[in-house]
Amino acid sequence: MKKDEIRLVKEIRERFLLPESLGIGIGDDAAVLDIKGPAILTTDLMIEDVHFDLSYTSFYHLGFKIVSVNVSDIYAMGGDFKGFLFSIGVPETTSDEDFKDLFDGIQAALKQYEGFLIGGDLSRSQKVVLSGFAVGETEKPILRKGAKVGDLIFITSYLGLSSAGLNLLKKLSEDNKRIIKSIRDFKKFPDKILNIEGVNEVLDRHLMPLARKPNKFKHIAKAMMDISDGLLIDLHRLCEENNVGAEIYVEKIPIHPAVIKVAEDLNVDPMNFIFSGGEDYELLIISDRQDAQEFDLIPIGRIIEEKGIYLIDPQKGKIPAKPEGWQHF
Amino acid sequence: MKKDEIRLVKEIRERFLLPESLGIGIGDDAAVLDIKGPAILTTDLMIEDVHFDLSYTSFYHLGFKIVSVNVSDIYAMGGDFKGFLFSIGVPETTSDEDFKDLFDGIQAALKQYEGFLIGGDLSRSQKVVLSGFAVGETEKPILRKGAKVGDLIFITSYLGLSSAGLNLLKKLSEDNKRIIKSIRDFKKFPDKILNIEGVNEVLDRHLMPLARKPNKFKHIAKAMMDISDGLLIDLHRLCEENNVGAEIYVEKIPIHPAVIKVAEDLNVDPMNFIFSGGEDYELLIISDRQDAQEFDLIPIGRIIEEKGIYLIDPQKGKIPAKPEGWQHF
Repeated sequence: MKKDEIRLVKEIRERFLLPESLGIGIGDDAAVLDIKGPAILTTDLMIEDVHFDLSYTSFYHLGFKIVSVNVSDIYAMGGDFKGFLFSIGVPETTSDEDFKDLFDGIQAALKQYEGFLIGGDLSRSQKVVLSGFAVGETEKPILRKGAKVGDLIFITSYLGLSSAGLNLLKKLSEDNKRIIKSIRDFKKFPDKILNIEGVNEVLDRHLMPLARKPNKFKHIAKAMMDISDGLLIDLHRLCEENNVGAEIYVEKIPIHPAVIKVAEDLNVDPMNFIFSGGEDYELLIISDRQDAQEFDLIPIGRIIEEKGIYLIDPQKGKIPAKPEGWQHF
Repeated sequence: MKKDEIRLVKEIRERFLLPESLGIGIGDDAAVLDIKGPAILTTDLMIEDVHFDLSYTSFYHLGFKIVSVNVSDIYAMGGDFKGFLFSIGVPETTSDEDFKDLFDGIQAALKQYEGFLIGGDLSRSQKVVLSGFAVGETEKPILRKGAKVGDLIFITSYLGLSSAGLNLLKKLSEDNKRIIKSIRDFKKFPDKILNIEGVNEVLDRHLMPLARKPNKFKHIAKAMMDISDGLLIDLHRLCEENNVGAEIYVEKIPIHPAVIKVAEDLNVDPMNFIFSGGEDYELLIISDRQDAQEFDLIPIGRIIEEKGIYLIDPQKGKIPAKPEGWQHF
């Protein structure tokens, strides 16, 4: 695919032009990017049949998602996103249309996050492999470390949507999978496609998650991380970093109606999705500001001295939660 | 492999500590690195059975090489290498020993290049996939663009070694492949293992290439790139970028004795390896300085107005070379 590759690189280079004032983009040995303040750097890998299933995931979805998951890590450090590098391995059977979809998805996400594609690498591969690398900048990074006993724990929105979406997608008929795969904008699509209210939102969150920009509230955050593996495991990691524990007030956690509906249909506890479902890419924020709710943050708990994560339930009292995942209680 | 993964990440984090003065390394959502001057950023992907063969390539070799090929791109921009991020996908069968070898190789290369591992991602995968990202800095990047008619073309050392090494490796017996796979330091290994003088150098160059640091001569370079795909194709790319052509003086190109010997054994033209063999990671430098040889650079040609690459042979005169590869003449 030598000739195709040269043409493809040329197309990519023309499509993703970097404004000269920002540096040098695709086409040289490496990219050059003017960074103000310390550089924030992260990488995330997505592998076919491990992280995604091509029966319901399009190349457009993949392009969008590989940008989002990387940008989410930049935002979780309080950084401003600047540039993206992207390596891909694809089977020889990958069509021009697939490449176009992929780069459309990347471009849509880059527009959303106001950053630029500045480099990458292409290769053959048996399974589809995507590796993204995001670069940002910030004068003052917000780390996982910084939480103190008594601080409040906040999240940015509903959790469990991505996990509900994933579990629903797995159960769909082949015809419905194909329909989902063809959707680029779930917001514009009739909501009732699977006869579940709000279903588009859970599918959207799984296939094309949005990274949360913390600019409105990052000045009040003492510690911050993104929720990529699930609330319990990620909060556990943050607590370990700070040598503290946490209480979660179960009744304070907002539950999205579609998460309840999907859980009912699949006959599982919706709290499973919320506590242990990954890939929502909401932010987990630790702050001592009592007015944090003014910034649309949702308070769900408190940092405590006692190690471990505890769920405070009005009926059942204080129950220790296993960090590996939500235990039915 | 959840528990193993947590332990592995902990081990990696302890092994690759970033000095606090330089920023924040492995363990948070993203790394923070203090960069002076514009950031230089690059990525390279290596995929099993496309870029390497595990029958003669060890995880140690892979670790070393994924760092070298990325650092080579930083050096090719005239940059100073600072930090490395590394994603890997491996089958479930990958042993603790394999991981140790891999990180030993990465660590050896990072020591060589005086940089730090600052982040990464781990995943399962059917085939082994390595994705590296290197970050550097420079006040004044040296691009592929900058060559003018009349400028001289230089290389840093012998070419074709990696390609000769690869072609030799493919022909080895399974026993010899296993021996090669076990070698970490080819310089310390008896040279006569395969009864070919200098064979260790060609195997070393293929399995554990070294990136060329341009610090001694970068101030005299008008344009520069690394030779990763082969002299002809890479010089062609540089010329296209500058809208010029090039003459190569065939008799000026140094030929390594092991390249001749391997070519004889395999019954091919050694110039094949030299002109079209990739992965040597020597540098291609364009300079108008007549004293460039003082910097141990080897002059091999000249930039001309006429587009195309031409080989100047004392016997055969001027012959156009196809950029895709060396054509026997």
